[in-house]
Amino acid sequence: MSNDHPAIDLDAALSRLEGWEKTPAGAISRSFKFKDFTEAFAFMTRVALLAEKANHHPDWSNSYNRVTITLKTHDKNAVTQKDIDLATAISAL
Amino acid sequence: MSNDHPAIDLDAALSRLEGWEKTPAGAISRSFKFKDFTEAFAFMTRVALLAEKANHHPDWSNSYNRVTITLKTHDKNAVTQKDIDLATAISAL
Amino acid sequence: MSNDHPAIDLDAALSRLEGWEKTPAGAISRSFKFKDFTEAFAFMTRVALLAEKANHHPDWSNSYNRVTITLKTHDKNAVTQKDIDLATAISAL
Amino acid sequence: MSNDHPAIDLDAALSRLEGWEKTPAGAISRSFKFKDFTEAFAFMTRVALLAEKANHHPDWSNSYNRVTITLKTHDKNAVTQKDIDLATAISAL
Repeated sequence: MSNDHPAIDLDAALSRLEGWEKTPAGAISRSFKFKDFTEAFAFMTRVALLAEKANHHPDWSNSYNRVTITLKTHDKNAVTQKDIDLATAISAL
Repeated sequence: MSNDHPAIDLDAALSRLEGWEKTPAGAISRSFKFKDFTEAFAFMTRVALLAEKANHHPDWSNSYNRVTITLKTHDKNAVTQKDIDLATAISAL
Repeated sequence: MSNDHPAIDLDAALSRLEGWEKTPAGAISRSFKFKDFTEAFAFMTRVALLAEKANHHPDWSNSYNRVTITLKTHDKNAVTQKDIDLATAISAL
Repeated sequence: MSNDHPAIDLDAALSRLEGWEKTPAGAISRSFKFKDFTEAFAFMTRVALLAEKANHHPDWSNSYNRVTITLKTHDKNAVTQKDIDLATAISAL
């Protein structure tokens, strides 16, 4: 594995990421609930800005006041440090 | 059925909505593909503005340059004129 | 004056709108400061959703973490109840 | 002047940036007009994503379907290559 995608200890990383869980497809995911759609979409806008800046984008869905974010590094077919970094930044919003 | 949610002829409506299809769960859905994430998210922002104005919100997902929008009137558990109107407005963007 | 744009008591209205002030041009205005650009733009997105829903749009500017919003009903050349309603909704975000 | 902010030939740069003009305050500025507010705000969202990615943010204003963008590197009190790059990216949207 190349140095720019070092192997990570996923369980250790998740233990520091409240609310994020492993999915059956080998990604990590978290759901967020807001007061209404406008609050949910404002959150999505902040995530979009983070993701574009990191050049690393989520798979995500929204239904009214709920947003579910799934992260995985597709070209590695694994969760990498990039995903942990983005999850950490999203959780800090 | 009350007058504010008249029965609609879904097949006739879909015949005028290019790219929209019925889903197994009784909704209508369409996928859109863009050049990149920023173009996709700008489209999502326009849809968000349309949806909030109509007070009728999509179930939708995004993965990089792809956006999939699913519409159904949840309190009727059916596709109603509200969904057709929103689908028409989205297609006109 | 038509009933849909009743005369308002602007001073009374402003006394209930913390931070909003009259401008020399006969509008009302308030500045908001955020932690950074992403927080400011998320706020702008919520204001955009409110404004589009109300079909009443602000004159506004942004510079990094600062947003200044100015409201006036252009076709009346005055502050009307629509402006007070939007200012109230913005302040409640 | 440090190498990361080389002096630029502003007139030459502007000759390649259609619609951008020097302002009295030593910035560059361009106005954009759209069909309506939703189209204007979608454009603003794309600019916000570009700006956050570049870590270089505009001074800008919006009034319904009009957006005016002003660029200057505040810590140099001058137009630098960063402004030219962002203006070029905005014009390419």
